[in-house]
Amino acid sequence: MFFSEVASHLRLAFIGKDVEIDSMNELSLSLPSQLAFALHKKYSLELKSSKAKAFLITSSLIEHLPHDSSYIVCDDVSLSMAEATKLFSKKLVEPQLSFAIVGKESYVDAMAKIENGVTIGSNVTIMASAYIGTNVKIGDNTLIYPNVTIYRDSVVGSNCIIHAGSVIGADGFGFSHTKTGEHIKVFQNGNVIIEDDVEIGANCAIDRAIFNSTIIRRGTKLDNFIHIAHNCDIGEHSLFVAQTGVGGSTKFGHNCVVSGQSAFSDNLSIAPFSTFTARSGVTKSITQSGGVYSGFPLMNHKEWKRLQAKIKKLNE
Amino acid sequence: MFFSEVASHLRLAFIGKDVEIDSMNELSLSLPSQLAFALHKKYSLELKSSKAKAFLITSSLIEHLPHDSSYIVCDDVSLSMAEATKLFSKKLVEPQLSFAIVGKESYVDAMAKIENGVTIGSNVTIMASAYIGTNVKIGDNTLIYPNVTIYRDSVVGSNCIIHAGSVIGADGFGFSHTKTGEHIKVFQNGNVIIEDDVEIGANCAIDRAIFNSTIIRRGTKLDNFIHIAHNCDIGEHSLFVAQTGVGGSTKFGHNCVVSGQSAFSDNLSIAPFSTFTARSGVTKSITQSGGVYSGFPLMNHKEWKRLQAKIKKLNE
Amino acid sequence: MFFSEVASHLRLAFIGKDVEIDSMNELSLSLPSQLAFALHKKYSLELKSSKAKAFLITSSLIEHLPHDSSYIVCDDVSLSMAEATKLFSKKLVEPQLSFAIVGKESYVDAMAKIENGVTIGSNVTIMASAYIGTNVKIGDNTLIYPNVTIYRDSVVGSNCIIHAGSVIGADGFGFSHTKTGEHIKVFQNGNVIIEDDVEIGANCAIDRAIFNSTIIRRGTKLDNFIHIAHNCDIGEHSLFVAQTGVGGSTKFGHNCVVSGQSAFSDNLSIAPFSTFTARSGVTKSITQSGGVYSGFPLMNHKEWKRLQAKIKKLNE
Repeated sequence: MFFSEVASHLRLAFIGKDVEIDSMNELSLSLPSQLAFALHKKYSLELKSSKAKAFLITSSLIEHLPHDSSYIVCDDVSLSMAEATKLFSKKLVEPQLSFAIVGKESYVDAMAKIENGVTIGSNVTIMASAYIGTNVKIGDNTLIYPNVTIYRDSVVGSNCIIHAGSVIGADGFGFSHTKTGEHIKVFQNGNVIIEDDVEIGANCAIDRAIFNSTIIRRGTKLDNFIHIAHNCDIGEHSLFVAQTGVGGSTKFGHNCVVSGQSAFSDNLSIAPFSTFTARSGVTKSITQSGGVYSGFPLMNHKEWKRLQAKIKKLNE
Repeated sequence: MFFSEVASHLRLAFIGKDVEIDSMNELSLSLPSQLAFALHKKYSLELKSSKAKAFLITSSLIEHLPHDSSYIVCDDVSLSMAEATKLFSKKLVEPQLSFAIVGKESYVDAMAKIENGVTIGSNVTIMASAYIGTNVKIGDNTLIYPNVTIYRDSVVGSNCIIHAGSVIGADGFGFSHTKTGEHIKVFQNGNVIIEDDVEIGANCAIDRAIFNSTIIRRGTKLDNFIHIAHNCDIGEHSLFVAQTGVGGSTKFGHNCVVSGQSAFSDNLSIAPFSTFTARSGVTKSITQSGGVYSGFPLMNHKEWKRLQAKIKKLNE
Repeated sequence: MFFSEVASHLRLAFIGKDVEIDSMNELSLSLPSQLAFALHKKYSLELKSSKAKAFLITSSLIEHLPHDSSYIVCDDVSLSMAEATKLFSKKLVEPQLSFAIVGKESYVDAMAKIENGVTIGSNVTIMASAYIGTNVKIGDNTLIYPNVTIYRDSVVGSNCIIHAGSVIGADGFGFSHTKTGEHIKVFQNGNVIIEDDVEIGANCAIDRAIFNSTIIRRGTKLDNFIHIAHNCDIGEHSLFVAQTGVGGSTKFGHNCVVSGQSAFSDNLSIAPFSTFTARSGVTKSITQSGGVYSGFPLMNHKEWKRLQAKIKKLNE
């Protein structure tokens, strides 16, 4: 797609060369072929060093654009960005792609739906009413239970188990907001990557990334009803107990243990070997590895126990 | 159905004319063709002005019946009401209805199940293993992902997106209780109405109303794992973040924002532009619009922050 | 299977007779045909009186073995136990079993998947995209909504309703841990038993037992998003409101009422007629019946109300 088509879709003027664009990305990660965007002065340094050649920006950032950039000045970059993502969203069904390739010794139930462009390894089991979207890749020995939905472009490793009702790759919850209070969809054009040896319980939901990937790393095990928002990165060999939710872009180091009904805010970074007792509510990053935490607001587990004793005393 | 059939089903005597009844409803909303019920003295005023012509009532309320009413005096109105709802429940599958009508440019996967009596607009996508129940109506441009279940009589607007695994129109959680501790089902004979421009995340559950409708209004967006109980009315352009639950008959004004893992009791009324931070636990109605709330028990967000600081000090 | 095959799978030596084994079980429940295991000195008494004839044990327990036992001494019994469970896991699909037997007046949608070995009673409804696994038994008059998944060997009683998206019999969340932080699956070889007159809401998950059965007893009703972990036993005529989770092996007496978003730890025993208000967090057993509880940490409901008043005063 040419930059002029983006401008036309946004009903805005573009300045500079009419460069070709294949996708969008956030400022710090964007490649020369990607459309980037900068909403706020605080991104001026990232903007200066961006590799992108085409930008949606607010007028105050023009001076920080890299030399020779093409750009569109937007009244509301957030809204224009949302509208632009629609241009790069993919069709759900692509009949022109080749039929799925299925490895040796694999069992695909006749009542499972496999879209075109799919690659399935050997010794894989895909049960009835499972849905495997366009271009999904599934490694060897993986087991997909009934009524699992795997959205297009997801990648599932080898030796994985995904239990019934789980949804891999649904849209992350992303909207820009108009001045009159409407919510404009940010199309979620990334994907989900599930590495090897991952087990996902029943009725979980792992959302696809806005751009790039939501990642569940090797050896991690999720219980039932786990919510992983877009762009999370869940470290290796971690355990998440039932009904826990993780906000967007939060990253976990390896070997974390999260007990049931816990919750994590967006954009956190959690050190390896962190342990969270049941119903932890985590709103700040954890930089030191090996800690044990409790409560909401979160605190050291021992401190939380002491606090509960003191609160109990209030009542005496 | 005639009122005498209701009496016979309940093994109770009826008094008055044998009027014809087409459904049931709560006292204040019931039409002349509907069976109403009154459990308690506090409903005596509503009873007096009810438009219904047939009632299940407790003996102490006889004097408050409108002139010329037919009625059944029940030892336990709640139990008799539950038993009566069964008479008005509909069959799940109705082969005698005409085949679904599907608009132009719509794609219905061959592995989706569409019951009879369904109307689907134009440019709609219904993916594999989705279930569209009897008499469901779906507007234009709407996208139903795999493994979505839409129960009979639900109405879904135009430009909606319903992500995989979500369930629209399952029975609300309603039971009457016997003296020996058994729970008798109140059949949920209402429906769900989802207006235009609504997006519903993965693995949500929006329950059908007991009578009348559970409503999700225009432009509202739900994240994953949202639970909306029977007879709720969710105002326009609201946002509900993951793992939040709303109790029965609770009504939200427009443009509310509810963060993750929040909960709302039954029968609340929430003013427009209310914001709730993560894990809010709301047990009282909110009458003033534009507030920001936190905690359980709920309080003003600033007050909650101050309280957390004070609680922290307890531990020093 | 012979005990020597277990030893060979574990790459360990066995001592004693090469007895035949048909399954595994925990120490106190194991039959003569079952492989048992003992991880810790505290099990020495149970070990002495066990009916099993073959054991995985730690070396310090050898002296407590019943006379004439066969055994394997393991460096890490927990890990060896996990590895052994794999030997007793069953195939998901067994084409050699006979076709399902379906009772009179039952409706099975052509788009439902019924594996072999299934027995379905009379007047049962099984809707599209439901999955009924190998050897499942379903009683009379039961209604299975679309996109329900019932894993193999589950037993569902008569007059039950299971709403869309619910998953019955997925693997419990059980792993043994290596010294290097990897999680080794404990195969969940038990099942789920749902007795008569049970209603299960939308998108619930009732996990199968490690050994033996997870049980939902007669007349109990679950709202949406209920998580019941492996080996729980939920007493008769109980009510669980939405988004509540119960940890492994927790047992409830009859007629308990649990409000929304509550949570229960593993291995608790809850007395009959216990009531828990919304968001209760229960970490200890309840021995006295008829109490009303709130909060996390849990306390008597009245005490909790008093405490909330005191906490509010902190802020004045």
